[in-house]
This record gives sequence, C-alpha cells and structure tokens, in this order.
Amino acid sequence: MGMTMTQKILAKHAGIESVASGQFIEADLDMVLGNDITAPVAIKEFEKMGAKDVFDKSKVSIVPDHFTPNKDIKTAQQCKFIREFSMEKGIENYFEIGEVGIEHALLPEKGLVVAGDVVIGADSHTCTYGALGAFSTGVGSTDMAAGMATGKAWFKVPSAIKFNVTGSLQKWVSGKDVILHIIGMIGVDGALYKSMEFSGDGIKNLTMDDRFTIANMAIEAGAKNGIFPVDEQTVEYIREHSKREYVAYEADEDAAYDEVYDIDLASIRPTVAFPHLPENTRTIDEVGDIPIDQVVIGSCTNGRISDLRAAAEVLKGRKVKKGVRVIIFPATQSIYLQAMKEGLMEIFINAGAIISPPTCGPCLGGHMGVLAEGERCVATTNRNFVGRMGHVESEVYLASPAVAAASAVAGKIAGPEDLD
Amino acid sequence: MGMTMTQKILAKHAGIESVASGQFIEADLDMVLGNDITAPVAIKEFEKMGAKDVFDKSKVSIVPDHFTPNKDIKTAQQCKFIREFSMEKGIENYFEIGEVGIEHALLPEKGLVVAGDVVIGADSHTCTYGALGAFSTGVGSTDMAAGMATGKAWFKVPSAIKFNVTGSLQKWVSGKDVILHIIGMIGVDGALYKSMEFSGDGIKNLTMDDRFTIANMAIEAGAKNGIFPVDEQTVEYIREHSKREYVAYEADEDAAYDEVYDIDLASIRPTVAFPHLPENTRTIDEVGDIPIDQVVIGSCTNGRISDLRAAAEVLKGRKVKKGVRVIIFPATQSIYLQAMKEGLMEIFINAGAIISPPTCGPCLGGHMGVLAEGERCVATTNRNFVGRMGHVESEVYLASPAVAAASAVAGKIAGPEDLD
Repeated sequence: MGMTMTQKILAKHAGIESVASGQFIEADLDMVLGNDITAPVAIKEFEKMGAKDVFDKSKVSIVPDHFTPNKDIKTAQQCKFIREFSMEKGIENYFEIGEVGIEHALLPEKGLVVAGDVVIGADSHTCTYGALGAFSTGVGSTDMAAGMATGKAWFKVPSAIKFNVTGSLQKWVSGKDVILHIIGMIGVDGALYKSMEFSGDGIKNLTMDDRFTIANMAIEAGAKNGIFPVDEQTVEYIREHSKREYVAYEADEDAAYDEVYDIDLASIRPTVAFPHLPENTRTIDEVGDIPIDQVVIGSCTNGRISDLRAAAEVLKGRKVKKGVRVIIFPATQSIYLQAMKEGLMEIFINAGAIISPPTCGPCLGGHMGVLAEGERCVATTNRNFVGRMGHVESEVYLASPAVAAASAVAGKIAGPEDLD
Repeated sequence: MGMTMTQKILAKHAGIESVASGQFIEADLDMVLGNDITAPVAIKEFEKMGAKDVFDKSKVSIVPDHFTPNKDIKTAQQCKFIREFSMEKGIENYFEIGEVGIEHALLPEKGLVVAGDVVIGADSHTCTYGALGAFSTGVGSTDMAAGMATGKAWFKVPSAIKFNVTGSLQKWVSGKDVILHIIGMIGVDGALYKSMEFSGDGIKNLTMDDRFTIANMAIEAGAKNGIFPVDEQTVEYIREHSKREYVAYEADEDAAYDEVYDIDLASIRPTVAFPHLPENTRTIDEVGDIPIDQVVIGSCTNGRISDLRAAAEVLKGRKVKKGVRVIIFPATQSIYLQAMKEGLMEIFINAGAIISPPTCGPCLGGHMGVLAEGERCVATTNRNFVGRMGHVESEVYLASPAVAAASAVAGKIAGPEDLD
C-alpha cells in the first residue's frame, strides 16, 4: 500500500524504504524549536542528560516570544537563562527581541524550514510549517531536549485524513474560516494523532498565508500535523526566503486515508468559534447579538501581512466602537515594517487601535491584553479554552482578521458585510 | 513681601489676597488625575466617604496607562473597576487604550491643563504640567478621592528655589541633561517640599518638550512642584491644544527665594545618573566603560516627539549592538502616529529596536521590559532606585534619548559624539 505525504517524509528521515501507520520510527530532525516558556525546561533536561553540545548549531531555534518584552522578573530570568544557554552553545538561531517575531511566523520568514523537512518544536502550533510541505509537530520539553542533544526523535507514524479542496474563497473569507469550518465539522478530536493532508485543485486558490493559518490550527482538531502539497506558490515562497534545498514529497496515488472530506471553498462563510472550544463554530449569519470588550488581531495564526491588510481594509476610515479595546500584534518585525510602509498602521491608529510589538502575549493570557471577569474578546488567535486569555469567567471568540476588525467597529460580533 | 509664581497661583485658587510659605490653604482644583494603579484605591476611598458624584465631570481624568494593555488578570480587574466607575460617574476624561497615552503627556496634549491651573494627580510625576505655568503636584490616593468629591485640596504653601537660566544648549544636550545636572547639584532632597521656579532669559531657548522633561523630574529633587514662566512658546502650545482660558502668573519682583542658582545652559554636558539615585550624576565624559543589556526610550519624561527625533537621528543608518534589547515607547498615540509619519519608526525597526504602544510599563518594572538579575539598562525614564525596573540586582542609568540611543549602538554607555 502507498504512503501519505507525511509518511513519505518520515520514511525518508528514518532512512527506511517505507513506513506504515502505527509504526514507531526514529527520524532525523531538520530543526528543533523552543521558546521562552518551553526552552528553559528543555535546557534543564538537556543538562540532566549530560549533553554537552547541541547536535547542530544551525538546526536549533530559540525564540523568546511569549513573555517578551519581559513581563516581570520571573520571565526576565527565564529569558536570561535561554539567552545565556544559546550564547554558550553557539546556537545560530537565537533571536533577540528586535530581530524576532512570533516563532511560527519567524521560522518560515527566516527560511529555516523548507518543504520536506522534519521539524519538532516545544510549542503546540509547530504544525504551522505544514503549509510549506514539511512534517512539523509540537512536542514536550523533554523531546525538545533529546532533539537538541541527538538531532533525532521517535514518532509513531500517523494515519491521515484527506481534505480534498475545490473552488475558491468568496470575498471576506480566508484560511481562518476554512480551518474553523473544518474543526466545526470534525471536532477538536476529529483528527486525533492523525495527519490532516490537504489536496485538490482548490489549493492553488489558497495563499501561502491562508495555508499557514490552516496548518497552524491542525492541532486544534487534535492532529499530529497538517500538511499541504508543494506547488508553485510554495516554491516561490521558499525561494524568496531560503537558500536551503527543499524536497517536494507527494502522497502515493494508492495511499490509504482514514477518511476523505470534500471542501468546497466557495461554500464557506466567515466563521466564528464560540467559547470554549474551537469546534463550537457558527457562521457569521448565525452569531446573534454578542457585545464585546476587546479585539485582538495578530498571533502565529493570523498576524501575517495579508491578515493585517484584511483588517485594515475593514478599519480604513472607520472608528473602533467606544468602549472596545483593539490590540493589533503583527507576527514579526518585518511584517510590522511592511504594514507600516503600506500605511496599515496609520489606519489602525486612526481607527483607535493600539499596536503591540510581536509577542504571543494576549493569545495565551500572558500579557498585553489579558481579560477581566465577564469580558468578551474576538480574537484571531487559535484557542478559546476556558480562561485562555485571562479570567476563567472571560470569553474568547475565534475569528478571521476581517471579522475581528468588523466586530471592533460594530462593538459586537459582526462581519464586514454587516457594517454600513 | 512678594509671592513666588507658585504662591500667586495658590492664593488665587484659595480665594485670598496673599499666601506665605508654610501657610495651610484650601485651594480649588482645575483637574484631579488618577491612573490604573492609584485610581482603584482612590475610588474605594471616595466610596467610603459616602461621595455620590465627582465634583465636576470635566475636571477628573482617569488614565489606564501603567499596566495596559492589561498585563495580567489582576490588572485587568483594576482597569475594569476604574472603567466602570468612570462610565457610572460620567467622567469625561476617561481614556481607553487606543485613545490614550501616558497620563502626563496626554493631559497637556488633550488641552486639559493650561497656565494658571491647580492640578493634583495620584502619581508622583504630576509635577510635569509646571512646564505650562500651572501648579501641579503628586498626591496620595486619599487626596485624590477627596479632590474628586469636593474639587478642593489642602496644601502647605511651599517656599521656592529659583533657577536663573541663561544661554542655550549645545548639540546633543537636552532638557533631560539640564534636570539631571540640577539634581546632581542639589541632590534628591535638594528641593524638599519646595517649588523649583525656573526663570531667566535662557528659558526661551528651551523647547516645550525640554520644559516638560525638566518639570517632570522636579519630584526627583524632592520638590513640591517645578514651574516655568509663561512665554510665547507656552501660549502657542496652549492655543494649539486647548480651548480653555489660561492665566499667566508671574512671580513678584520682591518674591523671596530660599536659594538662587545660576544655570548656564551652554555649560551643560550630556549627563547620566548612575544607580541607584538620580543625584548620582556624571557627565558623558566621565562615565567610563559600562556595558549594557537594555535601552528604553520613552515614558512621561522623554517619550515626546522631539525625544524620538533625537533618538532617530542617532540610530539612523546604524544598528543596535548585538545582545542589547531596545524598547521605544512613545508617550501617546498621536506621538506614535507623528513619529511614524516622519519615518522615525522605520529607523527604529531597521536599527533593531522594538516599538511598544504607549504605556508606563518598563519605567516602573511593571511590564514590557523588566530586568533580570545583573542586567543593566540605560533609560530615558525618571527613577533609578534599587529594583525600579525589575530585579533588585539590576541597574538603571538615567539619560537623554540621544545618549540612550548612542548607548544602544555602542553596547555600553556612550554619547552620540562617541560613535563613529
């Protein structure tokens, strides 16, 4: 029987001809990633293992992005710890604030992940790089430690669900709506430990930013990874950002899938995930009257330039509703700069939003926009679990940048088409 | 005997002909200010007093600027509390994030303070508005509560020290250097409970931004207030920002001063206050070799447009030294926007700095740039007490934006003239 795209990447990296679902393999790693929350734990494990050096100074990335600029003394100490480790071990891809961004936007932008790679990261949303045709997945800090030391990791080979994508998106519908639609359909455990493999002639109608957003949230359906085929857009992106060689794997024609879903992009409406699970989706036409206190636009899910463009298109010449706080957080410094050059930042500030430097902050209730009791937030982030963004009695509604921006103006959950 | 400028303002607001140093008076207030740290305490006091309404809805300002965007659940709750109080009482000058900035930059910019006013604020640096020829001073939260309820406050009339200012500043020397020089000269208790009254024909050579910085740090010499005469520049500033009537008070010719100092602006060198007191000053020529970890440029002291221009002039075409974190935090949204329009933000980002939205955050070790053990920061802020910006074993060096920017490039304390 043939292999899925994910299985072919894993087989190659395990140095064996073929693999099958459920098989345990040890694969070579092209990149091992950690951040200021997970790397400190991993470094302590690394030291306990008696490891001296990292397996390859160019294949470890350490990105202080969660609580930076340092939120408090404790996080300042954590950042100092990973900075000193990175300097001591000569880690080439340690990124200080100022040269940094949110890890999952930063690594592709810096060309550190290309098609065909196997990447582990001590962060759930490491699955983002599947957009590039790489196998990438989140792991625990202990796995990160072992990965840093040996350059290898054990995996149970996942089976796969295939999403056969056709058609193209309507105006104001984006990759975020696609993945929310899918999670609403299959549930937060709908792809548990499986690959979500996207294919079909509709893929070409999804931008790279759409694909990053979709792959980013594969974990929210429980998936081991999400992965896209490598097409002209992928190659163009990789060539623009990286000098590394890439390998474009394809699923075998006779690969087995646990399930196959047909996704007609044209039929997808702007979609919102209600508290407290990403599967609690409603289309914008079904949301009802939900007043809000805060809007956050950004994150590893939706902080890319096309996201900011969509938000700016909605906010241009409009004002944020009195009483609503709007925080825009671009995913990287270069996205920030690009948005500024395009005049998007001016639109945001004139509308009454504030602009945060790149940080994961508000997404995880870390800092820069934590919610009080009873407050409601429309967020372009990836999780709306109980207390995710602050108080246990607060609520997070997941949406696209266009819907988030329209909601900021309306003062309640709304789509761009609902505005005057 | 004649009255000082401060005394004349206080006499007028007490409704009496004249006052003398040491006299207790009750004065009418033109503005009562609180922030997200102090207003919650004041509001509880206000409620304990049994007060129902604020004395004048247009004469209370509440500005959530210290821990915003909300740092954590606790601060989110504090902000919610003051927001709800402000809505309930109809306070006209409650400023949400997005329309906000750092209180002491915001109030003058919004035209809420003009020459001749008496202003109290539950924040030490309320003395900033002395730049406009107003009497303004920091008070405790209980005084803020009473002020909100009654529109009045008790004061012990201060005596004064006169600073007779002549000449004009050299290139790369600013108001920050003037006030650090003065504090270095008279000490952190050199003006204890006194007015620092600035006069002389050198005043015209100080920009309004210079004057705001100087008045802002009067408290760091222990002063009750700092105050500048009203000249053409003051009137121009007030007319540009406010529709309110102003009154230009002048000290009597026979006013008594405890001391008179002559300040020749031309003789002042860029000045740095070493840990852990603002009086520990050295000129840039005497600083020696002090490597640094972080630079912060902004705050109520030095986050105005001319401050950002000075920093950008130094950083243009240069790079922040590897290993140094640089955080720029403009004092208000409109300064942010102006800096963006002038291309300053692009210079900062290209140099490797990050830009924070307006917040007091790093100045007080609140968030957005807290220091770890052993770290050193050059800051354009106003206090360098032990642990002010984070860990008790961290160090803060106070300086002007030009020196801070040059230090960022050099990786150690340096002036613009020290760069290649």
